[in-house]
Parts: sequence; C-alpha cells; structure tokens
Amino acid sequence: MIFVKSTDNDFDGKFEELLARGKMDIAHVSGIVGDIIEDIKTDKNLALRSHISKFDNWTPKNDADLKITTASMQKAYENIDKKLKDALHLAYDRIKAYHEKQKPKSWFDTEANGTILGQQVTPVESAGLYIPGGKAAYPSSLLMNVIPAQVAGVENIVICTPTPDNEPNELLLAACHLCGVREVYKVGGASAIAAMAYGTETIPKVDVITGPGNIFVATAKKMVFGEVNIDMIAGPSEIGILADESANANHLAIDLLSQAEHDEMASSILITPSQKLADAVKDEIEIWLTKLPRQEIARKSIEERGAIIVTKDMDEAVDLMNKIAPEHLEVATMSPFELLPYIKHAGAIFLGHNTPEAIGDYVAGPNHTLPTGGTAKFYSPLGVENFMKKSSIISFSKNAINEIGEECALIANTEGLTAHEQSVRVRLK
Amino acid sequence: MIFVKSTDNDFDGKFEELLARGKMDIAHVSGIVGDIIEDIKTDKNLALRSHISKFDNWTPKNDADLKITTASMQKAYENIDKKLKDALHLAYDRIKAYHEKQKPKSWFDTEANGTILGQQVTPVESAGLYIPGGKAAYPSSLLMNVIPAQVAGVENIVICTPTPDNEPNELLLAACHLCGVREVYKVGGASAIAAMAYGTETIPKVDVITGPGNIFVATAKKMVFGEVNIDMIAGPSEIGILADESANANHLAIDLLSQAEHDEMASSILITPSQKLADAVKDEIEIWLTKLPRQEIARKSIEERGAIIVTKDMDEAVDLMNKIAPEHLEVATMSPFELLPYIKHAGAIFLGHNTPEAIGDYVAGPNHTLPTGGTAKFYSPLGVENFMKKSSIISFSKNAINEIGEECALIANTEGLTAHEQSVRVRLK
Repeated sequence: MIFVKSTDNDFDGKFEELLARGKMDIAHVSGIVGDIIEDIKTDKNLALRSHISKFDNWTPKNDADLKITTASMQKAYENIDKKLKDALHLAYDRIKAYHEKQKPKSWFDTEANGTILGQQVTPVESAGLYIPGGKAAYPSSLLMNVIPAQVAGVENIVICTPTPDNEPNELLLAACHLCGVREVYKVGGASAIAAMAYGTETIPKVDVITGPGNIFVATAKKMVFGEVNIDMIAGPSEIGILADESANANHLAIDLLSQAEHDEMASSILITPSQKLADAVKDEIEIWLTKLPRQEIARKSIEERGAIIVTKDMDEAVDLMNKIAPEHLEVATMSPFELLPYIKHAGAIFLGHNTPEAIGDYVAGPNHTLPTGGTAKFYSPLGVENFMKKSSIISFSKNAINEIGEECALIANTEGLTAHEQSVRVRLK
Repeated sequence: MIFVKSTDNDFDGKFEELLARGKMDIAHVSGIVGDIIEDIKTDKNLALRSHISKFDNWTPKNDADLKITTASMQKAYENIDKKLKDALHLAYDRIKAYHEKQKPKSWFDTEANGTILGQQVTPVESAGLYIPGGKAAYPSSLLMNVIPAQVAGVENIVICTPTPDNEPNELLLAACHLCGVREVYKVGGASAIAAMAYGTETIPKVDVITGPGNIFVATAKKMVFGEVNIDMIAGPSEIGILADESANANHLAIDLLSQAEHDEMASSILITPSQKLADAVKDEIEIWLTKLPRQEIARKSIEERGAIIVTKDMDEAVDLMNKIAPEHLEVATMSPFELLPYIKHAGAIFLGHNTPEAIGDYVAGPNHTLPTGGTAKFYSPLGVENFMKKSSIISFSKNAINEIGEECALIANTEGLTAHEQSVRVRLK
C-alpha cells in the first residue's frame, strides 16, 4: 500500500504510479481476439460450438443447445428464497425508476418564419448484453444492463453469458426471468462479442453491445466498435474516498475493502487532510481483512494497489482526486454537498457518511456500470442513452429558406461545392 | 446507377449491394496506422516533424513551427469579403443557438426518507478537433466541431489540420479567428490523432477527439478509443430521399448530386413509389451533371453508388430507407411530418420541399457531422454531449439506508461479496 503525505519528497513519483493504474494491455491479446472474431464471422455457430468446447468444458450437441430455455429461467426464479426475491424486485423497481428519469426526450422549436428545428430520440432496435458467467456471474450486472435497455424501448434484447461445464448460474437465470428477458445464450468471451456484432445462424446481429468482461471481452468490444456501438472499455474496479475527521475509520476501511475484494487489480484510494483518520483507517483495514472470506484477493489488491494519501488541506485532496477521476467516489465529510461543485470527474459520487458505495451496486437506482482507470474524464455511467440515438430534425418554409438561403449558397460556393450551392439556389426566389 | 423496382426479380441482390456501401477496410491500413501511433508515442514532436516532411511536403524548422499564429488567423479573417464574413457569422450564431438548446442539464430528485439521487453533467477538460486540410479544408467543419465544444464549456480546445506545402487554408484560418480558437497545429492524418491522444512536447493530451478525416484518420481514432473518447467512425457521405409525386424532380436531382460531388465513394439514393418521378429525376441528373465543376467526381459517384428505387407504396419506401439508415434523409412529400413517426434511423431528417440537405450543412443550426454507412442505427449526430460526461449522484440519510440496507446486504451476500455486505451492515441499526 502507498501510505504517503503530499509533502513527502517521493510523493510525485508515487502519485504517478497511482495514475497509471488500471490500464489494460489490449495490444497484448489483440492477435488472439482478432482470430476469434474472424472465426465467428466465417464459421458462425460452428465456431461458437467449438470455442465453447475449448473454453467452457462442454460440447453443445446442436445449435439449439446454445440457448437457455425460458422454462429453466422460470424454474430458477421459483426456486429462490422469498427474501432474496423481494430484494431483487426492490432493486429492479428502484433501478427502473432512476433510469426512467434519465430518459432523454425528443424536442423541437419553431421560428416565426416557419422553421422547425429539433432532435428526435429513438431506441436502437436491438441490444446485446454481455454478462460474465461462472463464479463471477452477478445478477446485479444483469439488472444494470437490462433495465436501461428496456427503459430505452429496445425491442430485441439478447444476452450472452458463458456457462462453464454447461452449468448456468441459477441466480442469473432467476434474474433473467425477473427482468422478463427471453433470449439468453450460453456463449462467452470474445466469441460472444463477435457473435452479437456480426450475427450467427442462432444469435442475431445487434446494434449496441454493453456489459462488463475480462481483457478478451474488452478487446473484442473495442475491435467491433464501429460495426456496432459499445458502452465503454472497462478495466478493474476502483474506489476513491475523500474524507475529513468527521468520518468513521471503521466504515471507510470496509468501504475500501469492498472494492479490493472484487479483484487483485482493483484500487482503493483514501485521500484526507487528517493524519489521524489516515492512521486509523490503516489499522481498521488490517482488522477487517482477517474477517473477510475473500481476504486473499482483498489483501493483494490493498497491498499492491491501495493508497492512503494525507494532504495539506481538503482543496488539495479534491485536486488530487480529480486527477485520479475514480470510478466510485465517496465524499465522507461533514458537509459533502459543499465539495460537489469542485468534483470534476467521477463515475458515481456517494455523498455523506450513510452512503457506502455498495448501496449503489445494488439498490440505490443509478447504474453500477461506470467508467474506470481515469476514463471518468470522458465516459459516463451506463444509462438509457447508450440504447438510444438521435436524429436532427430540420424543416424550412419557403420564407425561411429565402431568409438565409443566400448566405448558405455563398458559403457552399466558397467551399467549391457548386451542387450544394445550386440545391439551395433553385429553391430561392 | 442502380435503377430498379422493388418488384424486380433481381431487387434483393441489388439492395444488399446498396446496404454494403460505405464500409471502410480499416484492417487494411491498421498496420501502417499502428506504426504511426507508436512513432508519435515514442518520439513525439520529432516524429511529428518527420511525418510532416514526409506527407505534407514541408519541413518544420523547430517545434514552434508546428503552431499557427493567432496573428495569421486574425489577418485571414480581416481579409475575407464582408458578405462572406456576415454569412459565417450567421452560421456561427445559428449553430450556437441550436446547440445551446441541446445542452443537457444536471438533475436530481429527493425522496421523503432523505435520499437524493441525480446526475451531474460536466464538460470534459480538453477536446482535440481534427479538421481536414488542403483543398478539402472546409470552414463549416471547423464551426460544426468547435461550437458544440464551446457550448459544452470545454476549457481547452485544440485543433489539428494538415497544411500541405506549409500553406494553411486562409478560409479555415479566418473561421478559427471568428470562433475564437487559439491553439491550431499544422499536423494532419493519423499523426495528429496520436498526438492529441497521447500528447507531445507541444500538443497537449486531450480527453475527446472529434472530426472528419480519411481512412487513416478514422483508423487512428478507432485505435486510440479508450485512451480518449471519440465521436464516431465516419465514412463517405450519403443522402437518402423519400419522395412522392408532389416533389420537384429538378430539385431532387441537384440534392442527390450535392452528395455525389463530395466524393466518388458517396452514395445518393432516391426511393419513391412514383415511377414518373423516378424517370424524371434520372433525366434531370444528366442535365445537372453537365453543369457542375465537380462533374467528374459526381458522375463517378452517381454511376457507381447512386440508386433510384421505385416501390409499391410509401410504406415500403420507408421500410427500405430504415434498412439503409442514411446519414442525411430528405422527406420530399406533400405531408412530410406524417411520415416522421415511421422513420427509425437517420442522422438528420430534412422535411419538406423547401429543405435541401445543404441548408443543414451550413446555416440551419444542427450539426453536419452525422453517422454514415448505416451507423445511424446506433450513433447520433455530433453534439454538445460528445464534449460532456455524467456522474451519478447518490446521497443516503440514516433513515434511507435503514429502509433498504437489509435488501442490499442480502444481495451482496448472495453474490459472495462480504465486504460489500458489511459496508452496508455497519451503517444499519
């Protein structure tokens, strides 16, 4: 763990190290992934079936085997405990309510001369959601990808998830039933991304692909970008915490560890002007670590990619955090909203002592698919807009084109585009 | 030109051909482009200067030579004709007004138990705009890229444009002054994209890169996607026209040619249920062609990539156009707004007989940077949102977390993420 004061001599170097976190070496796997994509483009289902034999340790007998039945989803749903069912429904409802507020509206404006200008927002026709499978199959990921697509009004929603040993994760199946999705395929990795981008005999070609995944999935998403749209290229998870002395060190320690337990590559970073809090959190992390089932992963993550930075004041803490642009940012201070205007970049901002990041992972409502590795400087959380697109609307009356057509023709002429110019001039008089 | 009825035997094959338009063979140049990007990452300005010698036929003497002076922009502006100056100001003002209406707002909602949920929208810190240079340097492209970035509130706007023979396009310089941009570099092609994505001693690293370009520029943009955000991967320009007998054949012919004159790879497609109109437009194209200075380009484009399709009725025409998902769509019918609800995919929709596509290229207000090659199925026009990003806002009170914390902890536990569970539980009571 980096445990450092901003005034230390070696601070700049250590901070640079921190900023370099979370970069994936996509170039390293792009050869393999390129081959997989070509394979699927050429041999479609045949290639899918052979990739499944190779990576997932079972062999589909026929094309129909690729699809999970709706009956098995319903059965899985019926089998889950009532309390969990209620919790998942609560999550579904809250996530849906938040995303409905987020949905953009078409708009237009008129001008007195008869002009209408506007923007029409429409859903994409089909979306492909990638959901990791096996042990790391999270029903929450399914909800967070399906609901924005449903709220957007996407007609065809397709899901791909790997099923090692042909054993689908029952919770994931239950969540599929709960969300009302019907097209779920037992296909994973780069093959799944290629199948949804180009289509096979069984899996339809989609317009947008979203969802988390490992470096092979991320690389495949980047490679098919342009053929389809994608949400973002995501790396390991992160949390940044800005805190003052009003924060509870025990709470912050477990918040940091809730990222660390995800992945050895995850980063957990506390920045505070309080040396006292910094010391206390460090101690509390040690205590918590001994109690966690995922202790091994969390310890490695904290040791190699964790950081506690003590700054001169809160202004400096905010500045440093803006440079980090963390995926999750907790603001654990006395008056967190006072800092909000100064926070420039973060995927999601959790304000106040009662808002642990985990509440946003499951039930708060906003999406938990967020930009990582500093990309919050330019990417947004996954949302309804990832499943919609816009068309500009332009309508001119005879009066309107007479009013500004001459200027339009002049610019077109200056650019040497005579047909452009003439297409306006023929309508003037 | 494809001139066909939807009832013809060979229609399906011809339509497939049309749908395959505008695909760029990015794989073909990705080796060269990858090398250029590596070069710039490693040698920065030194590599830039050597690429300029190689591709633009002049040799910068030093790093300062890479930058265009603001004095030369001001001089270029002062030298342009009063009428053109006014026309450009009109365009600037109208484009700005439209994009201001498009700017998304931050929002939040409160719940009675003390919860606050919302979405904060903030500009990226820096944007890099690529503007093609030399003969194809269009001041309108500059306006269409700069204005949305300015409206978004981007602090640092950087422009790269190639200057063959070290002779910047004077109109482009004038437009730079008019827009108030100050950082313009004489760098083009894949080198420019790499310089803005990774930064050099002179050119700052940016967060978002937008702007049109050839296949090398498009490929470089795809390759740096993830390191920065990009707008879209754009190919040759296109126009689709839906028309009925109320349309003026002469007008539609010059509208089709206004795309064809851009580029031999451009496509111009008329779909109409009227055989009479189809025949007349075909004849008018021939007449117009003889009058155009860019006749050679326009003729090649129309012959190789133009199409006139006669359908059974307007419903079928709309269906086919939705499959094409054109960059520009003119609806030249008696009651164009009646068709609007059925139009699913198009970059910009031009409604009515007085709205030639060219009016949208320059002065109408909406952006002329639009998705091509069928990507209007999932991409949107360039706009203010390309230069902004969102952060989710989540704030829970003690009451709020007590209300739904148990459900949250249960889901976390089910997913095997104990630290997540505990980070919520420690706050409950």
